[in-house]
Amino acid sequence: MSGSLVVVGTGPGKSELITPATDAVLAHATDLVGYGPYLDRVPCRAGQRRHASDNRVELERARLALSLAAAGRQVAVVSGGDPGVFAMAAAVFEAVDAGDPSWRELDIRVEPGVTAMLAAAAEAGAPLGSDFCAISLSDNLKAWSTIERRLKAAAEADFVIALYNPASKARPHQLGQAFELLRGVKAKETPVLFVRAAGTAEACVVSASLGAADPSCADMRTLVIVGASTTRQVGRWIYTPRSERGAAS
Amino acid sequence: MSGSLVVVGTGPGKSELITPATDAVLAHATDLVGYGPYLDRVPCRAGQRRHASDNRVELERARLALSLAAAGRQVAVVSGGDPGVFAMAAAVFEAVDAGDPSWRELDIRVEPGVTAMLAAAAEAGAPLGSDFCAISLSDNLKAWSTIERRLKAAAEADFVIALYNPASKARPHQLGQAFELLRGVKAKETPVLFVRAAGTAEACVVSASLGAADPSCADMRTLVIVGASTTRQVGRWIYTPRSERGAAS
Repeated sequence: MSGSLVVVGTGPGKSELITPATDAVLAHATDLVGYGPYLDRVPCRAGQRRHASDNRVELERARLALSLAAAGRQVAVVSGGDPGVFAMAAAVFEAVDAGDPSWRELDIRVEPGVTAMLAAAAEAGAPLGSDFCAISLSDNLKAWSTIERRLKAAAEADFVIALYNPASKARPHQLGQAFELLRGVKAKETPVLFVRAAGTAEACVVSASLGAADPSCADMRTLVIVGASTTRQVGRWIYTPRSERGAAS
Repeated sequence: MSGSLVVVGTGPGKSELITPATDAVLAHATDLVGYGPYLDRVPCRAGQRRHASDNRVELERARLALSLAAAGRQVAVVSGGDPGVFAMAAAVFEAVDAGDPSWRELDIRVEPGVTAMLAAAAEAGAPLGSDFCAISLSDNLKAWSTIERRLKAAAEADFVIALYNPASKARPHQLGQAFELLRGVKAKETPVLFVRAAGTAEACVVSASLGAADPSCADMRTLVIVGASTTRQVGRWIYTPRSERGAAS
């Protein structure tokens, strides 16, 4: 039997947000490869091998998965969220690109999932109701000046902005710098949402104005959404109207 | 029993991409409200009422759903994809905002789902591997000049660009105009993906360079992804490397 590799995402947290398609891949796999905490979300199955690795060794993990598939195993590479958004799918294709030419002939597939931004938006209402962008604030893989350029462009063109990886112990200052930059372009009243643990039983939404938003509200489990000029509150919800032609009709 | 309203998305197409959380909402609802073709994807259940409506009457549909919830019904508003992305969730909150003040006290919730952009990316590889944005090319609800401004900003700041609603019978020319604008900023070699019916058994991916991309490849069921400067091909896949610091290491 020839091997295969499927990159899947376990969604934002609770098992009810894992698609049946992803569940089927996880049930069929002979080998699961992933960051330890993501593998821990997957129920154990007899005879299935687990290859847990540390954070930030994505390319090593991708190469291991490709080697296993090349050896005839049915491999699932397990990400959180959607595997194509700031996660393992790109790492797998980077490893193919730089690796053994025979890997290009492998049966490789990606299964979509629910990415954090969608779960965070749903907790708060419908803040992504108009055009939006997703920016990772981590400068591990790109220059901070690139991030600043994108933030400025997104603010000037009035996108709703979803910020992935807003803060970590190693990077405590980026979110404050991002808010500072955005305050130079967007109105102080712009709604900002800190959504922690979206799509889990511990989900928590804190909203603030851009002028008063405190970057220390964010940690590694937080997704931050900065509204567009049209984003507004109604009742306990924040949403961005679909229409930008004045009042909705 | 007091009423409730949950906005759900049935994902890009096949039932294996509907989350169990959304399935549970659909099973519990006394009333389903939605655009006919989306309701047709939901299995019939005895005693459940269906309120199918035409396309482009989102606010009417939202008001009906809110009235039913206010009358004590358990209502599911059914979108395709993720309900928060160019879909019904924003329309529901618009209707709350402009409607009966008592609607603000209703039990309203949004369930996230798999949006078309994620399913399209998965069909092609990992084109959304770095920062990206989502723009609807429909100018029904915003000025074409707003769309042009966002396309230009996104191209200049080197986002991957996902284009929703790239073409319809009533709007055949927007995608060609968008490509023309993007050719003024991005390299002609930039990969462009036309992904039709992503997340269904009929999924089909056509890739082209921006210089040669033919807008007539897109119809209402197509999602178009325009790469960043780093987006590249390996084997039969298109992906955007996570790293923008030169060669991946």
